[in-house]
Amino acid sequence: MPAPVEFADVAADVLARIRQRAPRVHCITNAVAQQYTANMLLAAGAVPSMTISPEEIAGFVTSADALLVNLGTFDLERRSAIDVALGVQSERNIPWVLDPVFIERSPPRANFARELLGRGPVVVRLNHAEFAELAADGKAAGMGPAHFAKTHKTIVALTGERDVVTDGLRSAAIANGDALMGSVTGMGCAGSALVSAALAVERDSWLAAVAALLALGVAGEIAAQSARGPGRFASWIIDALHGLDRAALRAHAKVS
Amino acid sequence: MPAPVEFADVAADVLARIRQRAPRVHCITNAVAQQYTANMLLAAGAVPSMTISPEEIAGFVTSADALLVNLGTFDLERRSAIDVALGVQSERNIPWVLDPVFIERSPPRANFARELLGRGPVVVRLNHAEFAELAADGKAAGMGPAHFAKTHKTIVALTGERDVVTDGLRSAAIANGDALMGSVTGMGCAGSALVSAALAVERDSWLAAVAALLALGVAGEIAAQSARGPGRFASWIIDALHGLDRAALRAHAKVS
Amino acid sequence: MPAPVEFADVAADVLARIRQRAPRVHCITNAVAQQYTANMLLAAGAVPSMTISPEEIAGFVTSADALLVNLGTFDLERRSAIDVALGVQSERNIPWVLDPVFIERSPPRANFARELLGRGPVVVRLNHAEFAELAADGKAAGMGPAHFAKTHKTIVALTGERDVVTDGLRSAAIANGDALMGSVTGMGCAGSALVSAALAVERDSWLAAVAALLALGVAGEIAAQSARGPGRFASWIIDALHGLDRAALRAHAKVS
Repeated sequence: MPAPVEFADVAADVLARIRQRAPRVHCITNAVAQQYTANMLLAAGAVPSMTISPEEIAGFVTSADALLVNLGTFDLERRSAIDVALGVQSERNIPWVLDPVFIERSPPRANFARELLGRGPVVVRLNHAEFAELAADGKAAGMGPAHFAKTHKTIVALTGERDVVTDGLRSAAIANGDALMGSVTGMGCAGSALVSAALAVERDSWLAAVAALLALGVAGEIAAQSARGPGRFASWIIDALHGLDRAALRAHAKVS
Repeated sequence: MPAPVEFADVAADVLARIRQRAPRVHCITNAVAQQYTANMLLAAGAVPSMTISPEEIAGFVTSADALLVNLGTFDLERRSAIDVALGVQSERNIPWVLDPVFIERSPPRANFARELLGRGPVVVRLNHAEFAELAADGKAAGMGPAHFAKTHKTIVALTGERDVVTDGLRSAAIANGDALMGSVTGMGCAGSALVSAALAVERDSWLAAVAALLALGVAGEIAAQSARGPGRFASWIIDALHGLDRAALRAHAKVS
Repeated sequence: MPAPVEFADVAADVLARIRQRAPRVHCITNAVAQQYTANMLLAAGAVPSMTISPEEIAGFVTSADALLVNLGTFDLERRSAIDVALGVQSERNIPWVLDPVFIERSPPRANFARELLGRGPVVVRLNHAEFAELAADGKAAGMGPAHFAKTHKTIVALTGERDVVTDGLRSAAIANGDALMGSVTGMGCAGSALVSAALAVERDSWLAAVAALLALGVAGEIAAQSARGPGRFASWIIDALHGLDRAALRAHAKVS
């Protein structure tokens, strides 16, 4: 198991590569989170695109370096966009992240998330309520994240007070972040987008997911030092991510 | 008629209950205002949801503590979502707020707002141009807000330089707020969302509406003390609402 | 050719007229940029509207003083809204701006942009990659912006490190702005919206486009003096535009 400082270095390297290569991340995401997600990706150095038009999504995904599928608005247009996008993804082997937002509130959305799980997301980024729902039935019912990851051949990135990232064999727990992150809409969605960007530049997908969530958590801690509420914090964390360097990552990283 | 300090205490109590109970507020609102509305609700302590998908809106509304119907984007999908949502609402008696955005610019939208008025919103939150349009015909044509409220068995929350909240018998005028509130898109929509959250925790709907608009107005005054323009103000007011306490409400409240 | 100070004065005059007359700008724009565009227009003193509903768009455009057509989300509903809106536009001779977002990534979107070019936008606001794509075929293939503008009887407002505004006869190069503008999603879209607002109050469309982009560029420079990253910068530039005056425009304007 790497030491915290080694994870910090991996995160710094991943950020440096995102800034240098400017990977294109196509996001099929909910209407509420689109703007914040785009701004977070731009701050990290990635290039977001967001179209869900059936006529052009194939073209955008074809030229993308990573794909995010977020279920936060579960409309017909987005579902058919997801289907087309995943068709292109599997042909071209583009890394993709599934974010099953709020599935615990909506059975049809949960069912759709389970279908998508079968299409092989590299990472599933979700919170505890969403994980409980996703793991509630099927072949890994009631299992913990590591078992679930192993069974579904995916990486689970379970965010909360502590973030847990596991591929079934390796697990990291990240104790960075700030409670204000839960008071900004789209923060989890933006985290999933950062994981997508990291996958575009790091072949070890587990390390990529750890790096992205660590970077976001440290940015959150830095932002919380000066932002007094969720309004300012939402902008400050973008700035903290934009300016995040190796020294800050090393100083703050709490990974075990 | 309660004194300003009593209204301030009601607002403090309502805010405390929102923070404690974290009511779920389902918002059918326009694409422009979704993010800001969600962030304002989160800052107040409520839990927003925003889906308009016909397959799942019933589930979301069923488990919601209040419902917001905002007409700011008047597309077919939203109209059918509203119809389903109000079906669930009437079965389960969930308090709901109607926000007839910009109806003075669009006759079909105005007609739709009048139909919705017949479905019994607990509160109608709107500005003067919208009120003039809504009251332009039908059984309370040309009437003032108190008469209109009485006739339609609703509460009118008319916002502007002064906010007037009336159920036809009781009327309160709130002289808080700041001109910058008019320069942030979605501020009125966010106000309607806060009224919805207040309805979820306060049985006296008139008091709930007064409390929500008073809290927002005082937050606006506090934000305007340090924010120099509408860009910063949009974030600062979220922070002011997030940190709003009884002392600040008592110090600022101007209700008559 | 006017001196920089004369352009600064034109920009100050245009801003003053926008603030005084509060022109209505109807925006058919992408979901990601709607909120930011609305806030930028409000900060300038204009009144944004954003509906794309087929039933009501004609009414909104009829009472608008300018129209923005942005292709950033290329869905069926928006395309049919654009068709209706341009029908009203041509009847009533409302000035309009075309913003062909990301057409270099999507051939169907590029084709649609070329069709729209034939419907006579007063200004086409775009970046270099978009211009290269738009000028890649047809009657001005491979031409520079001035030739393109002349051939298509439009004004090209080509933004980048330096903004170039040309109607084929007159060209201005604006060297204001800041690199952070490229790290905020919707900044280009907001620029197009400001050009639309300027067209509503200035008959010389070339001067209007120069004025709007100069104002935005100077606002960006002012914001960058204190904002340390793209998160804060996104709000600060709105405030800088809101407070922009003749003195600041004269002090900063770099137009040749």
